[in-house]
Amino acid sequence: MRAVYGAVLRSCRNFYSAVEGRIAQRIITLAYGHPPMWPDARLLDLLGIEHPIIQAPMAGAVSPEMVIQVSEAGGLGSLPCAMLTPDQARNDLGVIRQRTSRPVNLNFFCHTPPRSDPAMEARWRDRLRPYYAELGIDADAPNPAAIRNPFDDAFCRVVEEFKPEAVSFHFGLPTSDLLQRVKATGARVLSSANSVREARWLEERGCDAIIAQGFEAGGHQAMFLSHDVDTQVGTMALVPQIADAVKVPVIAAGGIADGRGIAAAFALGASGVQIGTAYLLCPEATIRPVHREALLSAHENETAMTNVFTGRPARGIMNRAMRVSVNVSVRPRTRKSPSS
Amino acid sequence: MRAVYGAVLRSCRNFYSAVEGRIAQRIITLAYGHPPMWPDARLLDLLGIEHPIIQAPMAGAVSPEMVIQVSEAGGLGSLPCAMLTPDQARNDLGVIRQRTSRPVNLNFFCHTPPRSDPAMEARWRDRLRPYYAELGIDADAPNPAAIRNPFDDAFCRVVEEFKPEAVSFHFGLPTSDLLQRVKATGARVLSSANSVREARWLEERGCDAIIAQGFEAGGHQAMFLSHDVDTQVGTMALVPQIADAVKVPVIAAGGIADGRGIAAAFALGASGVQIGTAYLLCPEATIRPVHREALLSAHENETAMTNVFTGRPARGIMNRAMRVSVNVSVRPRTRKSPSS
Repeated sequence: MRAVYGAVLRSCRNFYSAVEGRIAQRIITLAYGHPPMWPDARLLDLLGIEHPIIQAPMAGAVSPEMVIQVSEAGGLGSLPCAMLTPDQARNDLGVIRQRTSRPVNLNFFCHTPPRSDPAMEARWRDRLRPYYAELGIDADAPNPAAIRNPFDDAFCRVVEEFKPEAVSFHFGLPTSDLLQRVKATGARVLSSANSVREARWLEERGCDAIIAQGFEAGGHQAMFLSHDVDTQVGTMALVPQIADAVKVPVIAAGGIADGRGIAAAFALGASGVQIGTAYLLCPEATIRPVHREALLSAHENETAMTNVFTGRPARGIMNRAMRVSVNVSVRPRTRKSPSS
Repeated sequence: MRAVYGAVLRSCRNFYSAVEGRIAQRIITLAYGHPPMWPDARLLDLLGIEHPIIQAPMAGAVSPEMVIQVSEAGGLGSLPCAMLTPDQARNDLGVIRQRTSRPVNLNFFCHTPPRSDPAMEARWRDRLRPYYAELGIDADAPNPAAIRNPFDDAFCRVVEEFKPEAVSFHFGLPTSDLLQRVKATGARVLSSANSVREARWLEERGCDAIIAQGFEAGGHQAMFLSHDVDTQVGTMALVPQIADAVKVPVIAAGGIADGRGIAAAFALGASGVQIGTAYLLCPEATIRPVHREALLSAHENETAMTNVFTGRPARGIMNRAMRVSVNVSVRPRTRKSPSS
């Protein structure tokens, strides 16, 4: 795994030398008439890490071992808890705390779980029936769906028990009382924004750093104040606008896979980066061989946004399920048509 | 106008100092184990310009005066010819050549013009009839549509007559014989790619530089080997992958609006940038007051891709026409549905 992110960390450490700081300062000062935020060590100071690289919490793909290795290497390892029970999170975190004393991040979803809708379920099953038949699967068998659990009192007690250095949320923030309990543990609170408005919303509610998540990002878009996928913003355009809008450090996410992307993120005004996909090929990733092969063979223009798997827009490698459903799912025809 | 891009040019000039070159070289060499392509002066040498900034050719929005001012300031001014007749292009270029001896770029579309389809036209008119009625416009009046003319023999004769230093194409390249005539004039040939495959295709056919156009770019996406908008790639992810795939200089486009974006583009492996939207607020832009106001008041999450205006996917500020039509136009439901 070191080989995978070693170069990234090396380029980043080097980027932080004094002479580079002065050069950067001169460029930005000349261009804007005021001193730059870049390069800054605010994120390093805030989180107590060596390198401003957060390993993205990818539910279902990150092992405790990955968190340990990343944190030991000086980045911020993140344990995704959305697909764990509180007890599983407690167990994983116990393992992590035994193996590293460096800062770690716990990540939680804070969505409103969908209500069970048997009629809609039945329509989905009908729709998918031809595929069940084609693949020889019993369409009426019970569905062992992977449940995503939102942050709640039980998860909050895990945070209070283990006191991780950072807690990051996806899809906004939990209720105010839960958020205050998290902050009372001393954890730094992070959350993702897909727009300037979301970034301001998060800062106003006490986030210590904002993850500016561009349209390129793999996995779920955090979007919580808008559900319009049509107007989502790319990392290149989003990061400087969020950096201008908030005072807290900004972490760039989306489309960053090597030292070039990290350098670019800093140039855009970020104080750090969150990288996900690049970690999926580490031996510590818990993805299956079929997924590794897909990652290794996919070209740059073979991913798309879809909500067909969870109901929320997420980017993944285009596959058959998305190919037959992406249109009707991501862009539901709910807008007023000219004939209405 | 100087105020608008002065900062951009200053930051860029500064970026090219020797010490910054050495710093950059060290970062990239450490990260990748080989010397960087960045910063390089290849685009400056190729085009004979001072600053690696190309003013994007925006059909209908760029005056000859803008081209003159940009080229005189040391960038590459670009005259968009897609909405001009060859005689209009000849006139505009005559004005430009009188006022500047610096390099200029002529830009042409090379699409296949759509065939007139009266039945489809009638369906569009029927669909739009409620809006004509609402706005008090005669739905059956002749439609003075703005025609986009593809590059042809008549345009090629303008190129042969004026010998511009650069000719850029959108939507691929013209036929081989026209392309050879352009190259025979000594013009450097540029074209845009939205994927690695398109970049390689353009390089194989003799392009001297590739514009890597990310999903964020305003106006028409150049896409010509694929028409799948779902899988379009953001600038942050596209530029380094195209830079790795071709030997010619890469020009980053899409989401770049100030010195931060330029610095980021160079970090990603580009040798220059093409900037469009930032020039629309210059006095030399020929857009109307209503468009200026929209640009000044739009937030970052208020643009979307649509093909409702020309049939080709293009990014613009979300407006009512897009709001009622974007879904059915950009993502036509042509994919096989599970029920078929």
